[in-house]
Amino acid sequence: MLGYFGPEGTFTHQALLALRPGESAQPYLSVPGVLEAVRHGQITAGLVPIENSVEGGVSATLDYLAGHSRLQIIDEVLLEVAFGLYVRPGTAIEAVRTVLTHPHAAAQVRGWLAEHLPDASVTEQGSTADAARRVADPESGFDAAICAAVAGELYGLEPLATQIADNRGAVTRFILVSRPVRPAPISGHDKTSLVIHLRADQPGGLIEALQQFAARGINLCRVESRPEKTKIGHYSFSIDAQGHVFERRMQAALAALHRTSRRLVFLGSYPSADGQTVKQTAGSRDEEFAASDRWLAGVLNPSRVRGA
Amino acid sequence: MLGYFGPEGTFTHQALLALRPGESAQPYLSVPGVLEAVRHGQITAGLVPIENSVEGGVSATLDYLAGHSRLQIIDEVLLEVAFGLYVRPGTAIEAVRTVLTHPHAAAQVRGWLAEHLPDASVTEQGSTADAARRVADPESGFDAAICAAVAGELYGLEPLATQIADNRGAVTRFILVSRPVRPAPISGHDKTSLVIHLRADQPGGLIEALQQFAARGINLCRVESRPEKTKIGHYSFSIDAQGHVFERRMQAALAALHRTSRRLVFLGSYPSADGQTVKQTAGSRDEEFAASDRWLAGVLNPSRVRGA
Amino acid sequence: MLGYFGPEGTFTHQALLALRPGESAQPYLSVPGVLEAVRHGQITAGLVPIENSVEGGVSATLDYLAGHSRLQIIDEVLLEVAFGLYVRPGTAIEAVRTVLTHPHAAAQVRGWLAEHLPDASVTEQGSTADAARRVADPESGFDAAICAAVAGELYGLEPLATQIADNRGAVTRFILVSRPVRPAPISGHDKTSLVIHLRADQPGGLIEALQQFAARGINLCRVESRPEKTKIGHYSFSIDAQGHVFERRMQAALAALHRTSRRLVFLGSYPSADGQTVKQTAGSRDEEFAASDRWLAGVLNPSRVRGA
Amino acid sequence: MLGYFGPEGTFTHQALLALRPGESAQPYLSVPGVLEAVRHGQITAGLVPIENSVEGGVSATLDYLAGHSRLQIIDEVLLEVAFGLYVRPGTAIEAVRTVLTHPHAAAQVRGWLAEHLPDASVTEQGSTADAARRVADPESGFDAAICAAVAGELYGLEPLATQIADNRGAVTRFILVSRPVRPAPISGHDKTSLVIHLRADQPGGLIEALQQFAARGINLCRVESRPEKTKIGHYSFSIDAQGHVFERRMQAALAALHRTSRRLVFLGSYPSADGQTVKQTAGSRDEEFAASDRWLAGVLNPSRVRGA
Repeated sequence: MLGYFGPEGTFTHQALLALRPGESAQPYLSVPGVLEAVRHGQITAGLVPIENSVEGGVSATLDYLAGHSRLQIIDEVLLEVAFGLYVRPGTAIEAVRTVLTHPHAAAQVRGWLAEHLPDASVTEQGSTADAARRVADPESGFDAAICAAVAGELYGLEPLATQIADNRGAVTRFILVSRPVRPAPISGHDKTSLVIHLRADQPGGLIEALQQFAARGINLCRVESRPEKTKIGHYSFSIDAQGHVFERRMQAALAALHRTSRRLVFLGSYPSADGQTVKQTAGSRDEEFAASDRWLAGVLNPSRVRGA
Repeated sequence: MLGYFGPEGTFTHQALLALRPGESAQPYLSVPGVLEAVRHGQITAGLVPIENSVEGGVSATLDYLAGHSRLQIIDEVLLEVAFGLYVRPGTAIEAVRTVLTHPHAAAQVRGWLAEHLPDASVTEQGSTADAARRVADPESGFDAAICAAVAGELYGLEPLATQIADNRGAVTRFILVSRPVRPAPISGHDKTSLVIHLRADQPGGLIEALQQFAARGINLCRVESRPEKTKIGHYSFSIDAQGHVFERRMQAALAALHRTSRRLVFLGSYPSADGQTVKQTAGSRDEEFAASDRWLAGVLNPSRVRGA
Repeated sequence: MLGYFGPEGTFTHQALLALRPGESAQPYLSVPGVLEAVRHGQITAGLVPIENSVEGGVSATLDYLAGHSRLQIIDEVLLEVAFGLYVRPGTAIEAVRTVLTHPHAAAQVRGWLAEHLPDASVTEQGSTADAARRVADPESGFDAAICAAVAGELYGLEPLATQIADNRGAVTRFILVSRPVRPAPISGHDKTSLVIHLRADQPGGLIEALQQFAARGINLCRVESRPEKTKIGHYSFSIDAQGHVFERRMQAALAALHRTSRRLVFLGSYPSADGQTVKQTAGSRDEEFAASDRWLAGVLNPSRVRGA
Repeated sequence: MLGYFGPEGTFTHQALLALRPGESAQPYLSVPGVLEAVRHGQITAGLVPIENSVEGGVSATLDYLAGHSRLQIIDEVLLEVAFGLYVRPGTAIEAVRTVLTHPHAAAQVRGWLAEHLPDASVTEQGSTADAARRVADPESGFDAAICAAVAGELYGLEPLATQIADNRGAVTRFILVSRPVRPAPISGHDKTSLVIHLRADQPGGLIEALQQFAARGINLCRVESRPEKTKIGHYSFSIDAQGHVFERRMQAALAALHRTSRRLVFLGSYPSADGQTVKQTAGSRDEEFAASDRWLAGVLNPSRVRGA
């Protein structure tokens, strides 16, 4: 059984159907609720949003991951935040006089409504999934819902228009979180996620931490600060690095960060949703690590390796 | 005329009264509303929250500052987020049966209420300032409001208890923003704020940017990432550095960042609210810059300086 | 009048003829002798060797430049160290039975002699220039000299073979040194030479010094350590950087080194003998420095630049 | 049997007697001669000078070590270069009319001679050890030798004055070199020596190499460049780092350099002659490496470590 940040019909629900089609899943009404259920073994994995291209990081997710152990990201999926105008089958656009949606969604489609339904009355209330549910009832008094595709389909509605957000292309990234497991094999386009809590006495600590990656030829794709909650001005850093923990260079970087930071939270290695191949620079490949191990063994025990 | 993120009686209002007592000010109902009024010259300066020790950065403020020019931080203030139980004069705690507040505040004082007013009925509605306004009316049906001190005072209420949040010590930092002006003189405990938009082709760009400060002996007190909103995975960085733009080392760091980043937004140099003296390392002092200027002039024109 | 590390007929003499043909010049019998004469104005400039591709840095030159002010490199030249077999006009190789040269040169042509003149008697004595002078005298008892081309020509000899060193391709770099002058204009393939004396309390001082170049997009072509002579384990660093002191990025790097090191000796900007064009990275060009100056002026005096 | 850069009576001989008193040893007349004998197993170890506080690195030693494998430094010793005036027993200073020494030594005591023996005739010839040998013969015609203490003692002479060099305090560092062996245990004040041959395509290669040490909290005590001999402008770097190859941090730094450089020559870990305790910074201790290993094992196999 999987879980997701619900209710049914939300974008997180839609993302889960895309990532794990056919698996049974139950909604939780908060991000901590999903992650708590994962930690306690009530669900095998849960999907939560972590980042939106317009809004930024999802604090509830970032803070829960930074503050709790026994959680690991095992997959991710990107989903374009796309609203549509959904109606009961048979309703024509000319017949739409009352529209129901959530205030946040209403704000994002204001331009489209002004152009295409200038005379419709728009009610902002509840959630977009709830709007779809109510519009499905002919007695509701509402002709159309502005909602995600998944919600429209869930309640038997049909789209009159899709992609109607004024600001196209907003994308949300969702992560699938489980209890700690051995990561999936290297795919060639992996990411490794972690949270670094620096030592209090490290003024240049962030630079030093980032250099642990640079010194091993590892690129970073995300660096996000979050308050430590104890005192203003203290931050932890949520980081996504390109590469997999099964690679020696990533192991070396993580071990170095473990030694030099106050606390390091490993959050998993998993295939990146963008499928971008990870580059390997000279000196950072596994075979070069193996060669340097052999060389070092020879240095430490010269007779065995170089001896007469 | 100043402005602030209102309505009257909020913590931002309280912070403004602490920072600029006696100045007339008007509330705006959104952060962008305050900053827009500053940009258009309708108010001389506006106070908005930028960071909370528990919740993190205030996205609305960070994003508006990152995306618009012609704004500059001229001061800051720290305020502990402290709720109190406010009543009409003469009401005793034994007489409090109905409490009005905002849901967010209610969540933060749940433990205190369970202990001290276990039988009171709590209504969560409107804003904490509005709760105070309504409680002031004996006909309201509410005996007490949970609100900020400023709201209680504003509506003639008296505190039965202060500092009643379960999680003490949460602090919010507010900034006073004006149109660009020549910064105030060096105080010895200054901060300089800026936003760096990196070039798209800079994988190690953040490290390089941070090193521009390190190379000049400048410590950072805040590094916060925000999405660029154009494409997921692209970030700008909001940074507070210790020191003043009137110092040569800060000028050199800013100029270097201007050259090497896609866009650099200067957001002001102003006294830090924590009053912590800024350290100067060897080689980063103004007199050392002046000495190196003279040395360089001698190198470029040897006859004048070292000549026979 | 120029000077060079002599006597006449040495490779330094040959290098001077290549670099400044037709100018009158006088030999000095030591490197300090040449440089002392420059400092005291007895000659306008002097040529000395600074580096050999096989032997490394020339200590006498490096140490004199590191320890004295009022000297500046204004040009450089590379010369292949090429020995030849020189005889009086008319002597055939079959007639060569006695060969005169310097021990150092003899060591470098041993293989050639074994192959081509296995029966000749080789006397190692004096200098190669002196060998040529003596061979020119038919009464000398020597049939051939192993010497530089310049020495052979100087004494009217003819080459029976050139490029006879066993280890081909050894190159010596010579520098032309004058009193401090305004450097020649940017050629596009310039080098800047300097000596850094680090502070005693700088364990990571060399890295920090090298990073001052890296942070400004400047490549280094030579880093050579020399003892400070005061105490074992203390070194100064002789550095050649790509670029010209008339470039803003080089000025910024030198000024930073001046501020952060114990002592910085500027040794000139001059065209590199290899003629390799210096690369400019983004953010390090003069026009970008000028743009960042203008930007900074606007930050410091906003009314003038962005005002009204 | 040990070897040293001789002849008998030189400072290297004196250094060997200090470092390995009572062991039989034979002189070789060149540095390569000593090291060649070590490589071929003709002697178990050989002592050669590597660095002088005034003259700098000893090229013959540095280049032989950089260019050959199968050699390892196992000890080092510092010796002050101290000349004395040695005479046959019974000779008073007033009776000294003729002095024999080597030109190099003569240059270093010129001031002392001018003051104390202004009328003596000084002959500069052979070696200082040879001067002592000849002075020991009453028929030699020489009253005194200027030589090292070891040479004076060797030939039965007595010192009339010691420490007579004009420039006091010059120190030479000598290294004892053997075939590769397992290094001696950690002493707490160890050095590790190595030679880095950078990849040809590494403009910032030296900085990156030095940062491999810095990133692991390792200080450097010597960085010396030597030409690669193939082409002018290509250098290898001879480096002494504080710490022992039995420490995890040093192993990590060496392995990283092995991966990222063209060739890395390990030259041994051995007690530093200055006896200075090596500092350990947070995150660089062996126990921290062990802890990070365990942490990483838990990340890779979560069930075993954190499971149930």
